[in-house]
Amino acid sequence: MASRYVIGLDMGGTNIRCAAVSPAGRVLMLRRAPSKAGDRAPAVASNIAAQIRALIESARRRGLGAPRAIGVAVPGPLDVYRGVVMTAPHVKAWRSFPLRARLEAELGMRVAIENDANAWALGEFWCGAARGRRDVVLLTLGTGVGGGLIVGGKIVHGRSGMAGELGHVTVEPDGLQCDCGARGCVEAYASSSGMRAMVAMRLRARAPIPAEYLDAGGNFSVRRMTARARAHDRLALEVFASAGRYLGIALASLLNIFNPDLVVIGGGVAGALPYMRKAMHAEVRARAFTAIAAQAKIVRAALGPIGGVVGAAYAAMNPVCRQD
Amino acid sequence: MASRYVIGLDMGGTNIRCAAVSPAGRVLMLRRAPSKAGDRAPAVASNIAAQIRALIESARRRGLGAPRAIGVAVPGPLDVYRGVVMTAPHVKAWRSFPLRARLEAELGMRVAIENDANAWALGEFWCGAARGRRDVVLLTLGTGVGGGLIVGGKIVHGRSGMAGELGHVTVEPDGLQCDCGARGCVEAYASSSGMRAMVAMRLRARAPIPAEYLDAGGNFSVRRMTARARAHDRLALEVFASAGRYLGIALASLLNIFNPDLVVIGGGVAGALPYMRKAMHAEVRARAFTAIAAQAKIVRAALGPIGGVVGAAYAAMNPVCRQD
Repeated sequence: MASRYVIGLDMGGTNIRCAAVSPAGRVLMLRRAPSKAGDRAPAVASNIAAQIRALIESARRRGLGAPRAIGVAVPGPLDVYRGVVMTAPHVKAWRSFPLRARLEAELGMRVAIENDANAWALGEFWCGAARGRRDVVLLTLGTGVGGGLIVGGKIVHGRSGMAGELGHVTVEPDGLQCDCGARGCVEAYASSSGMRAMVAMRLRARAPIPAEYLDAGGNFSVRRMTARARAHDRLALEVFASAGRYLGIALASLLNIFNPDLVVIGGGVAGALPYMRKAMHAEVRARAFTAIAAQAKIVRAALGPIGGVVGAAYAAMNPVCRQD
Repeated sequence: MASRYVIGLDMGGTNIRCAAVSPAGRVLMLRRAPSKAGDRAPAVASNIAAQIRALIESARRRGLGAPRAIGVAVPGPLDVYRGVVMTAPHVKAWRSFPLRARLEAELGMRVAIENDANAWALGEFWCGAARGRRDVVLLTLGTGVGGGLIVGGKIVHGRSGMAGELGHVTVEPDGLQCDCGARGCVEAYASSSGMRAMVAMRLRARAPIPAEYLDAGGNFSVRRMTARARAHDRLALEVFASAGRYLGIALASLLNIFNPDLVVIGGGVAGALPYMRKAMHAEVRARAFTAIAAQAKIVRAALGPIGGVVGAAYAAMNPVCRQD
């Protein structure tokens, strides 16, 4: 039976999403499973392979045939040409881990590996907010800040595939500590962990994180803080304005660097954009060249949580090679 | 007679350099003329055309035939696809000036227009410090700070050719005023005008710019200040360290964004790099991902003042089109 689908898998901190994607970018089937992030490195890889095998089996039963290609999106910097994950924020055991070779051995098929933010950018480019554009900057605001760069219709990979670490553009040289070890990266302000730090800093020792910013599990939640901002909570509004300011500073630099068609902003924290937007645009206006800023709309991502699986499928159908 | 050369012209603030360049990148003939920067826009264009005609005539007399192609490098943002100069720092009258059409009308030949920093990057890529590399970040430190980006062997132009404004990456959000109108661009620190401002700021009202930092014409000179730094002049060393720090902050961001093969630094101010290097590398080490920084050497440009003409010739032989 002819193959009518491509597999895209997105390895997140909490969940693995695995989809059968049509050659036109439509999600035909979607599975979700825990990513078991704490496990040993090979166990995590085996779990990914098991999810893919389970999807292949379901797809076969539904008469979709065998997959045409397999693409896997993973967080963190990776060597896209060798298929090696350098480090992964949520899988501590992945250090220079040859994920592609491992998956290919387990599955007996070629696998394409892509960074998750790059995959999302490809998803938006293929059939989301950036359809028909050629020069796109994508920023994902979540626990951290990720990035994907499309220049002339292709992902910018750089020498070994680690390009696009847009969360680690410095916006305040002596600013807040970032998880990467440096100070004042945009991630230290425009991510949920950065926002949590800004809340704590503004409260100093005076109080713990307000209970109304916590989710049912007791964890800091930007979604909950966004609800408070809607009710004019001053601390929430201040923190979002500060995050927006620094996001705007990074965006202005990226506009001057890339002169893009479009800027796409996605991720769980993007729901707070209405409260970040004013400060963000003020910095863009003050810092980006007027002619450049005028050519780039700044929009929300269109695909949401399936951006990664759709983009991973696109990456599988358009594999990179060092000479391309 | 067969054509054995390409014309590359570099329009600087003071001089126009115009060269006959061999198809292998060798400069066969070089003319220099004042750029008459104060003139009306069409007069400046006519002057460029006159320089090219004079070179063509000399080349013909030397038996080189007619030029194969003509490339012109100009400062400032331009629409590379339409050949329109948006603004030019040294030619105030060029505002949305259709330079390419004007030159083609005067010369009766196709002309390629490229930004001068992009041209320099192409020159270094073709036959300078970046030969054989594919992903290169070039920074030119002069009166201002310019940039050229090569990704996968091609200049990043962006939507309309204005990409690569690397001088206008923010490195200190509330920092020194930049000529572009914003605050804290890297150009406000790592250019000669930025260094002059830092000297003035450190002296406050206490004194004018020290005479030993001025050239014979009474103008602030980074070259003169570099000579003072060599003699352990404290103010000069402080200013270069500060410039190096901010250059390093910008470089770290650019490394994280591009994961380049190579960073090339050129321009008149690059002579002060020995006194900027320590602070620059400290920021790169503190801020760029280790794996990324390890892959990118930071080197001086190899071509010097002919970088622009060689790159303009390369641009003429490799014209861009929107769909490329």
